[in-house]
Amino acid sequence: MKKIKILDLKKTILADNDADAEKLRAELDAENTFYLNVMSSPGSGKTSTILRMLSILGQNLRAGVLEADIDGDTDARAVMDAGFDAIQLHTGGMCHLDADMSRNSLKAIGSENYDLIILENVGNLVCPAEFDTGAHKNLVILSVPEGDDKPLKYPLMFEKADAVCVNKIDAMPAFDFDAARFKQNVALRTAAPVFFISAATGEGIDALCGWLRAQMKQSKGGENGRD
Amino acid sequence: MKKIKILDLKKTILADNDADAEKLRAELDAENTFYLNVMSSPGSGKTSTILRMLSILGQNLRAGVLEADIDGDTDARAVMDAGFDAIQLHTGGMCHLDADMSRNSLKAIGSENYDLIILENVGNLVCPAEFDTGAHKNLVILSVPEGDDKPLKYPLMFEKADAVCVNKIDAMPAFDFDAARFKQNVALRTAAPVFFISAATGEGIDALCGWLRAQMKQSKGGENGRD
Repeated sequence: MKKIKILDLKKTILADNDADAEKLRAELDAENTFYLNVMSSPGSGKTSTILRMLSILGQNLRAGVLEADIDGDTDARAVMDAGFDAIQLHTGGMCHLDADMSRNSLKAIGSENYDLIILENVGNLVCPAEFDTGAHKNLVILSVPEGDDKPLKYPLMFEKADAVCVNKIDAMPAFDFDAARFKQNVALRTAAPVFFISAATGEGIDALCGWLRAQMKQSKGGENGRD
Repeated sequence: MKKIKILDLKKTILADNDADAEKLRAELDAENTFYLNVMSSPGSGKTSTILRMLSILGQNLRAGVLEADIDGDTDARAVMDAGFDAIQLHTGGMCHLDADMSRNSLKAIGSENYDLIILENVGNLVCPAEFDTGAHKNLVILSVPEGDDKPLKYPLMFEKADAVCVNKIDAMPAFDFDAARFKQNVALRTAAPVFFISAATGEGIDALCGWLRAQMKQSKGGENGRD
């Protein structure tokens, strides 16, 4: 079995995380690497959504995954078992990643060798929204069993979303989740598009990948796009 | 419609939150009030579990609920609609409650008038575990759709649990959740009992209430117990 690389992150206290994040985005642009930050509650299906996206995008792109957790290595193992590159980040108890922790992780995986790096942030619908990781775009996932009221209770997370996924739609019949009400609640926080998906069945993943491809193309302009 | 009391909490930075939490527990003991802290990810079913517990315990106990959220008042409204006392706490963006925020909340509801106060902490499987709220016991809820691997990824939350609930067991057939594996994963972190419940159907709530009654009795000793 291939050994999993585990990176122990140290807490950094930078005077201006936002400025550092902007600097990191410029560094990634110079590498021609697109960086996507995926955030959600624990157990919303970040890893399985990322795996579904990679099964489509990985055919034409060199993609790598940063798996952030407080402990454990199950997610990095799942990504590697699926044939993609990943490293496991341990946040040392920290509930989020900032731009500097993010930069150290990108260095560890060797971001210059990839077209796309996906960061699976710590499962947490609160704190990760407060720290710009330097990613080009933020994808926020909410799963059907969590309920359609979450944008009311966790406003900042949805404000920071460039796209919102509703995952586990295959389980919709078992839960009292009103898709129209959820879209209304999201619209209070952001104009970002909402994708209804099932990482279990693959439903909706094509549309989500289409959104990501468009973001990647835009981030570089047409003349040196990656398509 | 009865007006919901909303308390805006201010961040406090106390030198020693642990000492302050111990002091708060002593104050609550003097009031003969038992204080339960309920923690989970967003959407695991904290509110509906609390409502189920109150429908049983509320017959013999004076109970009140503190509903902590970053924003919104849906949870306090749900508790009040069910006929129980509640106030809504707004944490001002904070991802957790500490002992001092907790004390201000208890003062606002008038904890001396209750046998049992239940705190529904901010939905977050990371940060709330780091701060002793002054509660007598911590109840941690995980729901089936979140997956059985969570004690591996969020160790501190499970280490701090005095009891663990697995909620939404009615949805078990729709998800790949291995109850035996979950219990093994929990056992790595704590010896606390694990209750399998469904807040939707009421299954398992009696046993959970039995656990809570035993804790309340023990906290005061037999001679002035509340039974």
